[in-house]
Amino acid sequence: MKHFLSVNDVDQVDKWLEEAISIKKDPFQYAELGRNKTLGLIFFNSSLRTRMSSQRAAYNLGMNVIVMNVGTDSWKLEFEDGSVMNGDRAEHIREGAAVMGQYCDILGVRAFAGLTDREKDYQEEVLTAFQKYAGVPIVSLESATRHPLQSFADLITIESFRKKERPKVVLSWAPHPRALPQAVANSFAEWMLEAEVDFSITHPKGYELDPAFVKNTPVIYDQKEAFQDADFVYVKNWSSLKEYGQVLNTDVNWQVRESLFAENSQSYVMHCLPVRRNAVLADDILDSPRSLVIEQAANRVVSAQTVLKQILVS
Amino acid sequence: MKHFLSVNDVDQVDKWLEEAISIKKDPFQYAELGRNKTLGLIFFNSSLRTRMSSQRAAYNLGMNVIVMNVGTDSWKLEFEDGSVMNGDRAEHIREGAAVMGQYCDILGVRAFAGLTDREKDYQEEVLTAFQKYAGVPIVSLESATRHPLQSFADLITIESFRKKERPKVVLSWAPHPRALPQAVANSFAEWMLEAEVDFSITHPKGYELDPAFVKNTPVIYDQKEAFQDADFVYVKNWSSLKEYGQVLNTDVNWQVRESLFAENSQSYVMHCLPVRRNAVLADDILDSPRSLVIEQAANRVVSAQTVLKQILVS
Amino acid sequence: MKHFLSVNDVDQVDKWLEEAISIKKDPFQYAELGRNKTLGLIFFNSSLRTRMSSQRAAYNLGMNVIVMNVGTDSWKLEFEDGSVMNGDRAEHIREGAAVMGQYCDILGVRAFAGLTDREKDYQEEVLTAFQKYAGVPIVSLESATRHPLQSFADLITIESFRKKERPKVVLSWAPHPRALPQAVANSFAEWMLEAEVDFSITHPKGYELDPAFVKNTPVIYDQKEAFQDADFVYVKNWSSLKEYGQVLNTDVNWQVRESLFAENSQSYVMHCLPVRRNAVLADDILDSPRSLVIEQAANRVVSAQTVLKQILVS
Repeated sequence: MKHFLSVNDVDQVDKWLEEAISIKKDPFQYAELGRNKTLGLIFFNSSLRTRMSSQRAAYNLGMNVIVMNVGTDSWKLEFEDGSVMNGDRAEHIREGAAVMGQYCDILGVRAFAGLTDREKDYQEEVLTAFQKYAGVPIVSLESATRHPLQSFADLITIESFRKKERPKVVLSWAPHPRALPQAVANSFAEWMLEAEVDFSITHPKGYELDPAFVKNTPVIYDQKEAFQDADFVYVKNWSSLKEYGQVLNTDVNWQVRESLFAENSQSYVMHCLPVRRNAVLADDILDSPRSLVIEQAANRVVSAQTVLKQILVS
Repeated sequence: MKHFLSVNDVDQVDKWLEEAISIKKDPFQYAELGRNKTLGLIFFNSSLRTRMSSQRAAYNLGMNVIVMNVGTDSWKLEFEDGSVMNGDRAEHIREGAAVMGQYCDILGVRAFAGLTDREKDYQEEVLTAFQKYAGVPIVSLESATRHPLQSFADLITIESFRKKERPKVVLSWAPHPRALPQAVANSFAEWMLEAEVDFSITHPKGYELDPAFVKNTPVIYDQKEAFQDADFVYVKNWSSLKEYGQVLNTDVNWQVRESLFAENSQSYVMHCLPVRRNAVLADDILDSPRSLVIEQAANRVVSAQTVLKQILVS
Repeated sequence: MKHFLSVNDVDQVDKWLEEAISIKKDPFQYAELGRNKTLGLIFFNSSLRTRMSSQRAAYNLGMNVIVMNVGTDSWKLEFEDGSVMNGDRAEHIREGAAVMGQYCDILGVRAFAGLTDREKDYQEEVLTAFQKYAGVPIVSLESATRHPLQSFADLITIESFRKKERPKVVLSWAPHPRALPQAVANSFAEWMLEAEVDFSITHPKGYELDPAFVKNTPVIYDQKEAFQDADFVYVKNWSSLKEYGQVLNTDVNWQVRESLFAENSQSYVMHCLPVRRNAVLADDILDSPRSLVIEQAANRVVSAQTVLKQILVS
């Protein structure tokens, strides 16, 4: 069975990228492939892009879709093994996942990090349980530590806009009023390390990411320096890994704005959205030709459709 | 690009009405027209009729549908330009609308009046933003000041039940325990002024509607007098425009009930629903052959399907 | 018009069972039957299995689906006739059901027992109103007193796993931290009394079910004795009928666990799910080959599809 939980589930990134570009050009070429197949989209958290783009991707493949908001549409789920379920959780994930797997040919699952227990988050309790009990292919719609459909869409975007063989890509931390997971940053790093790019990271001290994801990617603590000659600057907030889930820094100087770029800079700026304007990214970037954020969002259909297609034919 | 936000977006009302009657007779005549097209339905407020009838209309045209409840399914949206987004709104409408437009071929949007700031409501902040940023045709599913799919369904209903060339149509205010928008009344007036009917309005003093919508429609302050020889009485509550959003009158005598009609009256009674029985409209009307409320609701599929069809072929 | 509210709506249980087994083998044999038809799924309560399996069943028949969560997606509904609707309920079921019937060819409705007013619950206020006002076939997705799609799925499961002509089936009460309806138990009893099985019930004193459902089914108050030579033990909690909606007993000894079965016992154990592990059913049952709970859940698609098929061809 073929799951899609990280770049490690992609046998050949360049082949998938080629397929994605082909699907982007002709979105209905596999419109019969999903006939009589149903995609279940299981949300433990809010979603706009993922919710809509995954549905659109499935429709483009001729699939049916069932959307389920866990906890409002259905019951709260228990994940602890051996627990005596006398509280507010009416169903165990062992049954929940197994049952959903009976009704759907593929399950997409979104379950964010709780940001209180690092070990628990990094063990990917929810996605692991679905893999274990559902009996059908699982697609991550953003898990505690990764957001691979986003990262794949980001790679497609870079591929579409790059002006040189091996562009320079910089992942930049930016401030945010709330504590956010490391998932997008982890995942973007993983994908960039598999791509034909020069990759580096810039963030304030204390925001170091897990080496399991970033390997030995260079970290530059001076943001402006890091941005020099960058072809793509990928902006994202994340909370501290070391002091887990803490906001250590709210320095507005890290907000990404036009003045951080040299006058002749050709850098594109990327963000996975949703983005808080004038907190994370300034209006003068988002409303300028530098911004690729809408193109990235559009490519979410392409990445989802490519992944679903690969699973359907496997 | 063709939007549908008011009767002003309809080039020829009589042609659209003709098309609607044809679609009503044969709902599946365009069942292939929407192949590979997706309708997004974006709800900032509750909905029963609009939610269900728009889906049915899309299915009848062979379209796929994505439903999104903003604020519960996804993030709260910011509409203020230039704001520093440090509060509870995680995404700006500039990105939100643009992204939804990437995933859908047509977007239906429901966003009620807030009833606290008249100017803001009458500027149609939400629908205007979607028009500006989404890049795809926008269909109003009821905005702050209009409910055109309802009004079009009402016109179809009148066309189906009229017994004379130019029927007399009376819009009557009725009491309601809560403050309601003027949208349905505004919109109904606009459509009636484009139709082959004699149109007048009756309401208590203080409930005058915006002249931009009602033009110089006669207002009769005596409800019983207004109802004389009416072929269609359209009942609806709205709050005051002048003392914006206020409930100025709760006089139960304005409740529409059988005793307001002459013994030999042939008047039909209409209401857009939901209706509070024995508050707005009495049981003795709703349970009598006068009532066309279910026919109106049924015609919501027809109006939506006609509008979607016109957009798809444009 | 053909409704599906109980086993009494099934003309020949053995024929429906035969059809179900055929559909289970070849789920797409009627994939064209539902073309241009729409199933509405109306939820007054949470749902996982029913929500997903009903959608899947409809898709397998080529139907479209509209899902509506009453009270969150739309308005709260009033059921009282003659009431003056000045409270929080914006729409009466007379209009609500009639309108939904205009948009859908079949309506599935879920409305649990309130467990405070026995007479009201057992009159099936909600389902009765839908039957009366919707004008289209109504399928119970679990009502106050019955869960027929579950019971039919249970019968299909028993049919698939039985090793003798006339298996012994025992319905066993089990403890639960909250008060639950009698619906599943009532309904299971009704279906078993129509099936080729030897049926008995075991529960503590005070948990007697309504004779209208269980007729003169033997009740054995000693659980272990009741389980002897059982081929299928169906586990379910329900609250008291006599002291209506009360939890009279929380004795953990009634929890169904391996030690209740003889060493050489071949009994299968069933439960409709969701199940609270180690409260209602022990891990040592649920994780053993005795458990048929996932098979039952899988058969929810089959029962729903059979019912929808029968309605579509009628």
